Amino acid sequence: MNTFGHIFRITTFGESHGEGIGVVIDGCPAGLEIDLAFLASEMKRRKPGQSKITTPRKEKDEIKILSGTFEGKSTGTPLAIFIPNQDQNSGDYSHIATKFRPSHADYTYEKKYGNRDYRGGGRSSARETAARVAAGAIAKLFLQSKGISIQGYVSQVGNITLQKEYSELDFSKKENIMRCPNEETATKMIEFIEKVKNEGDTIGGVVSCVIKTVPVGLGEPVFDKLHAELGKAMLSINAVKGFEYGSGFEGVKLKGSEHNDEFYKDENGKIRTKTNHSGGIQGGISNGEDIYFKVAFKPVATLMKDQESVDNEGNKTTVSGKGRHDPCVVPRAVPIVEAMAALVITDFYLRQKSHERINS
Amino acid sequence: MNTFGHIFRITTFGESHGEGIGVVIDGCPAGLEIDLAFLASEMKRRKPGQSKITTPRKEKDEIKILSGTFEGKSTGTPLAIFIPNQDQNSGDYSHIATKFRPSHADYTYEKKYGNRDYRGGGRSSARETAARVAAGAIAKLFLQSKGISIQGYVSQVGNITLQKEYSELDFSKKENIMRCPNEETATKMIEFIEKVKNEGDTIGGVVSCVIKTVPVGLGEPVFDKLHAELGKAMLSINAVKGFEYGSGFEGVKLKGSEHNDEFYKDENGKIRTKTNHSGGIQGGISNGEDIYFKVAFKPVATLMKDQESVDNEGNKTTVSGKGRHDPCVVPRAVPIVEAMAALVITDFYLRQKSHERINS
Amino acid sequence: MNTFGHIFRITTFGESHGEGIGVVIDGCPAGLEIDLAFLASEMKRRKPGQSKITTPRKEKDEIKILSGTFEGKSTGTPLAIFIPNQDQNSGDYSHIATKFRPSHADYTYEKKYGNRDYRGGGRSSARETAARVAAGAIAKLFLQSKGISIQGYVSQVGNITLQKEYSELDFSKKENIMRCPNEETATKMIEFIEKVKNEGDTIGGVVSCVIKTVPVGLGEPVFDKLHAELGKAMLSINAVKGFEYGSGFEGVKLKGSEHNDEFYKDENGKIRTKTNHSGGIQGGISNGEDIYFKVAFKPVATLMKDQESVDNEGNKTTVSGKGRHDPCVVPRAVPIVEAMAALVITDFYLRQKSHERINS
Amino acid sequence: MNTFGHIFRITTFGESHGEGIGVVIDGCPAGLEIDLAFLASEMKRRKPGQSKITTPRKEKDEIKILSGTFEGKSTGTPLAIFIPNQDQNSGDYSHIATKFRPSHADYTYEKKYGNRDYRGGGRSSARETAARVAAGAIAKLFLQSKGISIQGYVSQVGNITLQKEYSELDFSKKENIMRCPNEETATKMIEFIEKVKNEGDTIGGVVSCVIKTVPVGLGEPVFDKLHAELGKAMLSINAVKGFEYGSGFEGVKLKGSEHNDEFYKDENGKIRTKTNHSGGIQGGISNGEDIYFKVAFKPVATLMKDQESVDNEGNKTTVSGKGRHDPCVVPRAVPIVEAMAALVITDFYLRQKSHERINS
Repeated sequence: MNTFGHIFRITTFGESHGEGIGVVIDGCPAGLEIDLAFLASEMKRRKPGQSKITTPRKEKDEIKILSGTFEGKSTGTPLAIFIPNQDQNSGDYSHIATKFRPSHADYTYEKKYGNRDYRGGGRSSARETAARVAAGAIAKLFLQSKGISIQGYVSQVGNITLQKEYSELDFSKKENIMRCPNEETATKMIEFIEKVKNEGDTIGGVVSCVIKTVPVGLGEPVFDKLHAELGKAMLSINAVKGFEYGSGFEGVKLKGSEHNDEFYKDENGKIRTKTNHSGGIQGGISNGEDIYFKVAFKPVATLMKDQESVDNEGNKTTVSGKGRHDPCVVPRAVPIVEAMAALVITDFYLRQKSHERINS
Repeated sequence: MNTFGHIFRITTFGESHGEGIGVVIDGCPAGLEIDLAFLASEMKRRKPGQSKITTPRKEKDEIKILSGTFEGKSTGTPLAIFIPNQDQNSGDYSHIATKFRPSHADYTYEKKYGNRDYRGGGRSSARETAARVAAGAIAKLFLQSKGISIQGYVSQVGNITLQKEYSELDFSKKENIMRCPNEETATKMIEFIEKVKNEGDTIGGVVSCVIKTVPVGLGEPVFDKLHAELGKAMLSINAVKGFEYGSGFEGVKLKGSEHNDEFYKDENGKIRTKTNHSGGIQGGISNGEDIYFKVAFKPVATLMKDQESVDNEGNKTTVSGKGRHDPCVVPRAVPIVEAMAALVITDFYLRQKSHERINS
Repeated sequence: MNTFGHIFRITTFGESHGEGIGVVIDGCPAGLEIDLAFLASEMKRRKPGQSKITTPRKEKDEIKILSGTFEGKSTGTPLAIFIPNQDQNSGDYSHIATKFRPSHADYTYEKKYGNRDYRGGGRSSARETAARVAAGAIAKLFLQSKGISIQGYVSQVGNITLQKEYSELDFSKKENIMRCPNEETATKMIEFIEKVKNEGDTIGGVVSCVIKTVPVGLGEPVFDKLHAELGKAMLSINAVKGFEYGSGFEGVKLKGSEHNDEFYKDENGKIRTKTNHSGGIQGGISNGEDIYFKVAFKPVATLMKDQESVDNEGNKTTVSGKGRHDPCVVPRAVPIVEAMAALVITDFYLRQKSHERINS
Repeated sequence: MNTFGHIFRITTFGESHGEGIGVVIDGCPAGLEIDLAFLASEMKRRKPGQSKITTPRKEKDEIKILSGTFEGKSTGTPLAIFIPNQDQNSGDYSHIATKFRPSHADYTYEKKYGNRDYRGGGRSSARETAARVAAGAIAKLFLQSKGISIQGYVSQVGNITLQKEYSELDFSKKENIMRCPNEETATKMIEFIEKVKNEGDTIGGVVSCVIKTVPVGLGEPVFDKLHAELGKAMLSINAVKGFEYGSGFEGVKLKGSEHNDEFYKDENGKIRTKTNHSGGIQGGISNGEDIYFKVAFKPVATLMKDQESVDNEGNKTTVSGKGRHDPCVVPRAVPIVEAMAALVITDFYLRQKSHERINS
């Protein structure tokens, strides 16, 4: 339940207001240089309190490597990483100990487990994603050694949509506080989020992602198609409501003659497709073109407004607007989307190595 | 790779033009009455040649149960089901033995495996879904015994969209050749598909699905969220490009105060939500409300038109319009979507039973 | 539950007196030549009725390949194999429909599942091992292509023990009806089994096995040690009561200075060990020396003698000596032990390929 | 690779001389009271330096619970436990950085991973079993709530064998430094171990184990037989060379008429067997009788004597007797065997709950 992946496999643990958050990475190849500065920079991209449009909650998100490295390199044994909690402020949550916050996991956890840590959502808190980003950073280091790059970015906030295709974007300009690689659109999004925040409200958004130079052949028919695992990975992130890749939902409006990607041989003798409605994946297997997809995030459920609800006994109650939360999750979701993508691609990369072809 | 599920687990095998297609179901509870008439009726809903808007390929799709039942009931041992191929017509495919059909899996299988069965797509053929429907029918029998129902239907073809919400639909009118529960819209869709077919072209569509009376508590945090597994299941179906549940991609435009589903106690003392943007799932766990989602299918890649492509060596070639294929996949996709949903819900239902709460 | 292996993964199905027995092999590398004559010869080694010291039940054990091959070679997609039942004689079993045969699985299946196929043990019948031998034959073909050989043989029947070490044996003389590579011992064993058989009784035995030229590095710490998976594989065979490898239970009597295998460099510059108490495995990982192990089989539970027992309701009853069974299981168990060993080694061989070392 | 179990699933991490050793337990039922004093007492039974016949290495083996509990009870989310290393003394190991110690995992790890932590065996060190004992203690707490007990004990050291059957033993006398429940035999064993220790040598031994009041029906045919998983669990412990249950290797000498366990109804109307050669398991499923088994441990490989070996380059070298190690592993192995047994039984207990019988 708390494990993801087959060969490169992560297991996460920890709660929002317990000792901390952690992850065990099993199946990391031996000999990988563990660049601690890179890990820290990835953690920083996700951490709270990074800008005026994120939650003011402060967490250092410093990682401790508990096992699996020797003299700076991975040994092939499990890499355990721990991120102690700091700015926990458990007192904040006593007011919701017996109340079900609307559109949170309070009610379903209570019914499933009986015994839940109500402080900050406990295990259901998005704080769990810190562990994913740490593990994803290790996966990214592996993929970098193979020349594979992953670029996530914010492409929509509310009704404000980035009009450009990914191929027109300049990713070197991505790391503004919005993580939208177009300054003009980023500014609009930031202004809108600030407005929503001042209303005590929240807003949804879309994170897009493109993966480049993936080798041909990754992905497994029939159930473990590359995009099926990518979709599961993204849908497992808190607040995600939808996933589409390549032509996506828009593609249903096209005719086959418009949608099909014809093959040709390029100047280097490589087989390519003229268009890429397939999104780099055909029959569940990468074809060498860019893989791109979109992930829809609903508005954050915690509001600075009062909401009606019920308590443990079903009695009517009011959930007051309190706590420290993001008005819009997508800027901080970008590194999480990238991390999950890195985990999926790394896993398939290593799975593919176990496919031996006889006499080849 | 060819296995889906954890407790109720299926493994499929078989190719489009081999001996047949089959599935082994492991973990089916003992004592389940195997209603062969129901199995046959489900197979009939998926089978080719069922109407003027589906492929004329004829397959009886008669199932043979090879193991796992005794005196008409499941024994708890693996249920193996085999569906022999009949109208194979392998000769049809010699013309594409060395050509890569655009937007098919020919190229990626060739690169991944070296040794591919090019006849009708071999393993990558949608014929594999016959096994899923057979397994899904067993899962449906289980869910029926628990009072859980699953209704899939066509909600979009090209630009033609069913404007009504699922709650306004009369599913008793669903089983027309379009599997769209609104006669007027169904007629428009059928006419459009016939027009596209006459052009030798194909068109995409959307299948919607609603699951009712699911108990509270199904789904596993963190990675195996109920909607994450549903998403993976749907994305593993051939030609699927996107998945969304509850408010989906539209939900990103809403503010939290609009999107949140407030709790109340209904007249029977049951905790319910006033709205259902959550789509019956909160924190990855069912909350007892209706689960609903949408699945986007791209247009079928096989056209009755010539297309440019390359062959095994990368030389330019023409893929001629030949073979027998669906102009639009969604009418036949409805039972496949339902089958995969049934497999996911059954699996989580049985997984939930292994969650014991101490002293409760 | 009915699946074994991680990368090279088999799922078996079928009952003693149903349609037949089958197996789906997932993860078989593409391009492997499927030598049907070899498969048939392996099936013949296991099949009933092969000699005067085996059950007179007759089964042709002809295999049908249902999927996964094209033009005589594996395609990388699931290889499904089916072995129809023939000499079923279901009438034989009515007398035990409601009785629990001593030391069979009748009682435990009844309690676990409620609904059991009592004919010939149903799923608990050793007939299920036919599927393992078929799958093992595919694995053997793979291992042959890597130069790895597996030799099982009978080393004990009752108190009659083959006194020689495996290294002194001539395996070319193994395929007598006893599968004991020493003529003198084989003769004694056969005479003893015939005597036991004439008493209506049965006797246990030991199958030894040696695996040669396994590459260094197979096996996974910590839980999936090579010998741990071998042990599980052997213990999963019907009637097995014990497993030991290398020095085994005798090794506990040795001192460390006697037991340790010192390393040296051989004439070819290869690192070897002077002795091999380790049985070719150190820290759960193959070290390139011969892997050898022993498997203990209890006497067959079906006797030609009356036995006291109880029926479904717990009432005292007599189970009469009827049916057709082996007086001693080990001659037919040899190919099963080899098959399971082949599956384990193949799986680890392919798993090892997914271990990438960076910069190496 | 570092994960064990299906529903109650543990993943261990950590090395002998790194930060520490840990385990993540996934699938622990919610509401279980986590008795920290019991956990500490179990850790104490395994920890080094506990008596004159164990290694003098000192480790406090204090556990830190990092996640998964709230107000003293399990929450159903992953329980992470960490055991910091203390008496590491890494300097001790520089002399073997490039040498392969005989019958250790040095050579196989080097060949498998390239990059190994040579200090104290790193991941291959038996220190990893501390994590198993911690996880096993949680499993024991669960089993205690079900009335299931597990008793491991030392039954053999070298040639000194405890002559009594488990049913004749008084387990209340077990917790001497030998963990042998017969004072006379214990004394002999201790004297022998001291003698061996003074020679700078080591000796092997056998741990026996009996599990009482297991419900009927645990265990899964076909591959996941209860004894097959028990066997794998035991064989995964460092230094184990063999596993047998019930009649074991001795059982092969018996005739079926001697070996079969006849059923009868006892005074309480319960179906029992008169004898128990089956060892409480029939067809891989528990039958309600006592489960008992034996585990063979080879002599510890680290000697206080010089041994010949080779270095990384294959050059002849001498491995000197140094470091702090157990002259005989079995007294400290008893809690490890019990822990692994507890993990297996707990896992099957929870798996069994997912087996629903329809209409029953």
